[in-house]
Amino acid sequence: MSKDDAQELLLVFLPLPEPKEVIDSIRQQFPTIEVAFVEIPPGTLEITDDVIPSDLLQRATIMTTAFGVIPHPDQTPQLKYLHSFSAGVDHLINHPIFRDTKIRMSTSSGIHGPPIAEWVVMNWLVYSRMYTKILEAKNQQRWLTFKEVRQWEVDDHVGQTVGILGYGSIGRQVARAASGLGMRVLVYTAQPRMTPESKRDTGFIIPGTGDPDGLIPEAWYSGRDKASLHNFLAQGLDHLVVSLPLNAGTTKLIGKEELEILSAHCDSTTRRPFLTNISRGKVIDQDALLSALQSGALGGAALDVTDPEPLPVGHPLWEQPNVHIGSHMSAFGKRYWERSLEILRLNLTRIHEGKELINEYHR
Amino acid sequence: MSKDDAQELLLVFLPLPEPKEVIDSIRQQFPTIEVAFVEIPPGTLEITDDVIPSDLLQRATIMTTAFGVIPHPDQTPQLKYLHSFSAGVDHLINHPIFRDTKIRMSTSSGIHGPPIAEWVVMNWLVYSRMYTKILEAKNQQRWLTFKEVRQWEVDDHVGQTVGILGYGSIGRQVARAASGLGMRVLVYTAQPRMTPESKRDTGFIIPGTGDPDGLIPEAWYSGRDKASLHNFLAQGLDHLVVSLPLNAGTTKLIGKEELEILSAHCDSTTRRPFLTNISRGKVIDQDALLSALQSGALGGAALDVTDPEPLPVGHPLWEQPNVHIGSHMSAFGKRYWERSLEILRLNLTRIHEGKELINEYHR
Repeated sequence: MSKDDAQELLLVFLPLPEPKEVIDSIRQQFPTIEVAFVEIPPGTLEITDDVIPSDLLQRATIMTTAFGVIPHPDQTPQLKYLHSFSAGVDHLINHPIFRDTKIRMSTSSGIHGPPIAEWVVMNWLVYSRMYTKILEAKNQQRWLTFKEVRQWEVDDHVGQTVGILGYGSIGRQVARAASGLGMRVLVYTAQPRMTPESKRDTGFIIPGTGDPDGLIPEAWYSGRDKASLHNFLAQGLDHLVVSLPLNAGTTKLIGKEELEILSAHCDSTTRRPFLTNISRGKVIDQDALLSALQSGALGGAALDVTDPEPLPVGHPLWEQPNVHIGSHMSAFGKRYWERSLEILRLNLTRIHEGKELINEYHR
Repeated sequence: MSKDDAQELLLVFLPLPEPKEVIDSIRQQFPTIEVAFVEIPPGTLEITDDVIPSDLLQRATIMTTAFGVIPHPDQTPQLKYLHSFSAGVDHLINHPIFRDTKIRMSTSSGIHGPPIAEWVVMNWLVYSRMYTKILEAKNQQRWLTFKEVRQWEVDDHVGQTVGILGYGSIGRQVARAASGLGMRVLVYTAQPRMTPESKRDTGFIIPGTGDPDGLIPEAWYSGRDKASLHNFLAQGLDHLVVSLPLNAGTTKLIGKEELEILSAHCDSTTRRPFLTNISRGKVIDQDALLSALQSGALGGAALDVTDPEPLPVGHPLWEQPNVHIGSHMSAFGKRYWERSLEILRLNLTRIHEGKELINEYHR
């Protein structure tokens, strides 16, 4: 069909070359939708005619947004559905398109689990198996001896307990990977999840990943009060994984007292608990975390996020052994865009069928 | 009871302090068995009176053996059951106790899966996530940028295919961990495993680990001929894990041709296959492996074992990027002895009940 006949125009723009495969599959599946792709310069902050031709913006009925680069509603008069490449749309809540329109929106929640879970497990293993010694020996062409690498102190994760704070798609994939290593999984959610229904993951799930029905945890804990959280932290955790959204209730949720409880109740006589933060730096009281690492109350930490970011040169966290800094990029990988566009593809069918969208964001 | 009343004497010796917990649990469970522990000097090769009092040897009815340190049958006239801390007893087959007696023997097969699987997955993740760059940045107190770490080239393992050659307890725990990352698992065994019965793991299994019923693999392949092996290697594998015993039939089983087939059939357009060897160095033609790494036909390799061991200084494998050398210690860790003694503990009950032993070795 010619462009003029098209009733729908899907406009996708990214600061990189077109993800051909998934966009072609959208074109094939929806022949009545015109699909336009625009590669925008890296670092673009605002949509201007230089970046995206105004003709495309004028005609766009469906659009994507990445890194907060989002048009003013006046630029996109036909727009009825906006898909965000981010997991949340919190950074958009003051934007007129969010505030002043009823344009439907969906998020990319659900696609971050696999890369983040792999980053998490990598750090656990690098830490527990003293990988830096192995790497050093390789570079020195040196066959290691048991004594040198203290191999008899190395322990695997079978039977170790991981507590996961927040059980969304990321926490669920961490649980799946941990369970593959033979670990016990305990989870903590703000709201109680007593029924099979409430334990389900209702967002987008990459097939074969996560914990769709919430069957992996050995036990579920919940609450919004300190006492409930402290009870969870006292369950003998070898690992604590923080995967909570940041909000008023979760700011500095993990402080001095929480880390003390975690450390005091770790069953192991030889290991100290290991903390992983894949949420936001501000969820943890960073000074308290540093003290706990320095005193040995914690054995180590994997921090994809810090406060502030970037973590400044000279910050003592950089110098602390057994601290892994992820530079807030654990979620990214080469399949990021195709997985996000897969959500969009599924939603195009749902719009056609008049159904609720997957990952639909309700204002 | 006094020593004189004891009918049974269990003699355990190791080049390290007594693993108190498991030995005490044996003492409690079998009050009629006297349990003696002897710490022998590291590097002991032969049993003499200096190392183990001859009185204990004379009276021992049950005994353990580690690192091939094994008494002559004349030293242990009462011995009826010998438990080996190794997975196999191949290193003992020329020893008189093996050749000239009918003393029952059991192995520690089944306890190596968790540490080896963690070593395997660690190398996969370190390789795929470019960990050495992350480590370098940490040491330089540098927050990484996407561009620098080529984060968009990093890929996770969801949907990647691992082929496992040999599906014993180690291969099964690798399968379990891989499945936790969302990978497809294909396996290859010498004998066909068509029935649920034949797919089972009949040896010792650490609870919560492995694949007791053989349910993880998406498909099973088998054969003892080149054509069957080549067919398996052509299944589009991203990873090949070699976990076969070394024997005449498996020596240099993976050579130039096999690596070419593996490389040519890897579905990915951007990744080359990654080879992991946790069996014996001689199962792979090491020159062919080196060539495949140098030419880029393989993306990388994790080699716990090499030929010879130690790998000599100056060997080109040391200098090859993306090659991980394990110094043949991936199986070891702090729970090695207690897990092995757990097999012994279970067998003491079985002896009492007149049953076949777990991991019984039949001459």
